[in-house]
Amino acid sequence: MNKQNINIKCDDRESGALVNELNKINVYCSPIRLKVGDYVCEELSLCIEYKTINDFCLSVMDGRIESQSLRMKDNYLHNYIIISGKINDKIQNIHENCIIGMISKLTYNNLNVIILDNEKQCAYIIRRLIERYTEKYSEQ
Amino acid sequence: MNKQNINIKCDDRESGALVNELNKINVYCSPIRLKVGDYVCEELSLCIEYKTINDFCLSVMDGRIESQSLRMKDNYLHNYIIISGKINDKIQNIHENCIIGMISKLTYNNLNVIILDNEKQCAYIIRRLIERYTEKYSEQ
Repeated sequence: MNKQNINIKCDDRESGALVNELNKINVYCSPIRLKVGDYVCEELSLCIEYKTINDFCLSVMDGRIESQSLRMKDNYLHNYIIISGKINDKIQNIHENCIIGMISKLTYNNLNVIILDNEKQCAYIIRRLIERYTEKYSEQ
Repeated sequence: MNKQNINIKCDDRESGALVNELNKINVYCSPIRLKVGDYVCEELSLCIEYKTINDFCLSVMDGRIESQSLRMKDNYLHNYIIISGKINDKIQNIHENCIIGMISKLTYNNLNVIILDNEKQCAYIIRRLIERYTEKYSEQ
């Protein structure tokens, strides 16, 4: 498990926590300035936007998540918004119904929104998704 | 908000916690024995499988979630697996990577997997999803 190295691109503004967890399971990130998404595999048309729950709340409050998700859909086939942390633990002054309403809107618009507990879990699902789409495209 | 009553079908084996939360926001459940899903709106082709994190773990361990998700896809257009609780809080003796691996598989197979903190949040997203699909079909 996790033996094979995987190389992806990540946005050069991504901070260390998730990148470190990805490195631990042999997913290596080349930092470049990305116009869309935080972690991408061009050859799989896979785009991942990663946010902590507090970043997600901020992006709901300023409307950024909607423009980001539209750009993802315009540029990639497989789009995931992966969130680390519980809604209950948010520090922003935003009603949880606004957060959940946005999650329903994003999923209704065919974006996958996956909420996990921490960066380690987020790193693991990124690895598994890359493996699945790699299999898919190698079968074709 | 939440003024308009919504009526859906729910499986008669569903226990009370989520049904109570749905009632509080004017979503009323008619219990019948469902072959597929726990909460369904036939007219919207919307099917929701609801699980606590511990139920979800059990269904991963015995393989049930895979057969359930296949039946959902065979019968409905819009399918959601909504989970209440954190992976970190599971009591089953199953590695978290197995849980996350299954979530990646389900989302890869076009099922929406949404993990929220509690029944109240799950009830609210169910209401919002029903409202969105109701709008969608009333526009057609």
